[in-house]
Amino acid sequence: MQSVGIIGAGAWGTALAMTARRAGRDVVLWALEPEVAEAVNREQVNPLYLPDVRLDPAVRATTDLALPARADIVLLVVPAQHLRSVADRLAPLVKTNIPVVICAKGIELGSAALLTEAAGALAGTTLMVMSGPSFAIEVARGLPTALTLASADLAAARAVAGALGSKAFRPYVSSDMVGVQIGGAVKNVLAIGCGICVGRRLGDNAKAALLTRGLAEIVRLAVALGGQVETLMGLSGLGDLVLTASSPQSRNYSLGLALGDGKTLEEVLGARRAVTEGVTTAGAVVALAARRQVDMPICAAVDRILSRGASIDAELHALLDRPLKEEVRR
Amino acid sequence: MQSVGIIGAGAWGTALAMTARRAGRDVVLWALEPEVAEAVNREQVNPLYLPDVRLDPAVRATTDLALPARADIVLLVVPAQHLRSVADRLAPLVKTNIPVVICAKGIELGSAALLTEAAGALAGTTLMVMSGPSFAIEVARGLPTALTLASADLAAARAVAGALGSKAFRPYVSSDMVGVQIGGAVKNVLAIGCGICVGRRLGDNAKAALLTRGLAEIVRLAVALGGQVETLMGLSGLGDLVLTASSPQSRNYSLGLALGDGKTLEEVLGARRAVTEGVTTAGAVVALAARRQVDMPICAAVDRILSRGASIDAELHALLDRPLKEEVRR
Repeated sequence: MQSVGIIGAGAWGTALAMTARRAGRDVVLWALEPEVAEAVNREQVNPLYLPDVRLDPAVRATTDLALPARADIVLLVVPAQHLRSVADRLAPLVKTNIPVVICAKGIELGSAALLTEAAGALAGTTLMVMSGPSFAIEVARGLPTALTLASADLAAARAVAGALGSKAFRPYVSSDMVGVQIGGAVKNVLAIGCGICVGRRLGDNAKAALLTRGLAEIVRLAVALGGQVETLMGLSGLGDLVLTASSPQSRNYSLGLALGDGKTLEEVLGARRAVTEGVTTAGAVVALAARRQVDMPICAAVDRILSRGASIDAELHALLDRPLKEEVRR
Repeated sequence: MQSVGIIGAGAWGTALAMTARRAGRDVVLWALEPEVAEAVNREQVNPLYLPDVRLDPAVRATTDLALPARADIVLLVVPAQHLRSVADRLAPLVKTNIPVVICAKGIELGSAALLTEAAGALAGTTLMVMSGPSFAIEVARGLPTALTLASADLAAARAVAGALGSKAFRPYVSSDMVGVQIGGAVKNVLAIGCGICVGRRLGDNAKAALLTRGLAEIVRLAVALGGQVETLMGLSGLGDLVLTASSPQSRNYSLGLALGDGKTLEEVLGARRAVTEGVTTAGAVVALAARRQVDMPICAAVDRILSRGASIDAELHALLDRPLKEEVRR
């Protein structure tokens, strides 16, 4: 597994290119925007999505999907809502049985499909999912990061973990593709909710309570879909939720902060180029939860605030004013 | 349950006095320092521990332990290492069967006893433990807070929750006294570790990984002692850990930040009046874990840094450089 093709040159795809180089791999990075590919090749920088990091000159960028598709490992790092169309285009280009690692986090709007389902065209490959607490800028800079790499084929996952891993970048393997995907998708929605709470100046106590009940929502949905509780207590569940719902570095948390502070969704998103995954995922999570009859009051409140103009104060108070009862439902 | 006696006028005891007043209770607050009792009574302020909050004039302070001991509910809010001696003094003064709620967080050094064990002299009362994500200043200001109130007597816990609870202060009852105590004690040690990691500029990814593995340490110890996993995924486990290990408001996290940044333990503690519970608890947790043969590498590393002058860099790297393997041990 010498070569790694990375499809998507946002901040995360670019950071993963740096990581794969550090692990000694040959890297081809596919960018949607020709100006990104050109800047990576000529100036060793991604001016649109990761401007503050000097890239390894050996990272080669392209806008031709056939080039990364030929690699020994393919990482899919496009926004969740574009994953299906990219997978469809990629399918005829990749070798059979190669590992294709989904590095996006979200649930498909409309179909409410997990990304492994949206990537159904890639059934001839060995699909994997990588997720965990990993701000791109820190990974790009080589700071220590641990995440979960899940596949039905554990031996293949171990091989990929070995090929991508290094002292500072540590993928731990798991067989729970459902749990890892639910954790990665729902945490973005919850991070918006936690941001709204803090932006509204309700305090850190209220936010910690919201985050705790939010993890319980993640667990309920994951278990209903066949995932495992232990996965959600790990890096791709709790770990990523804590990271995303605590740092203004997070696009989802900072969106929530701004909304809580009185800004409109249009104002915040209008000033951003990168995708804020939680916004689309909120509706998809609510649809998926409804289909499985899973109670997810925090995600539902975030969705009502984002998509239906619900009052922030009314939604927050409804969440925080629940009756006094036993903490653990049995 | 009209009257509440609060023993300990630190920031948390003082905040709980405000909470009990908001719930409509009569409150007597016992202070160790005569100047605190005097200032509370004359100027409605606690100048040493909660100077920024104007107190309810109906909160009466005293240095006579017999006064709060006569109340219908007693809250014990002294530092963990003083709990045994205060419980011993209190025992002959309280009515039998009244609820005594331990609001301290820690494990006794030397004996490695849980605080319910250290309070053995109070066996004739109905012991409870209250813990959760609750910065005192936010509780004092009436910001929304949810926590866990555990007792072997659930009906009594429900009555106390009703007597102390209000719109903004919500105790959820539980029967898991062990889990609640382990969560509250160990999170302070882990918060120091997370602070050291961030203070050393290893980044938020590394901190999130450490926090995730830290919760697993809490769960292992709690389960070994008879606690329940669900408790540790709730407010008094995950919730309190996230709060304490994320905010510079936390004495334990900010101690870690300073140590990671190169300050010495003596420099940091020398500038503080209030107790930083995690410092003494670290050694007690390590002793308790050893006795039960529970693996707690993060707590052990924090203890070596605090008490045995171990190198921060060596300890952090040992924690972060663990071999690549499956995330969930089965």
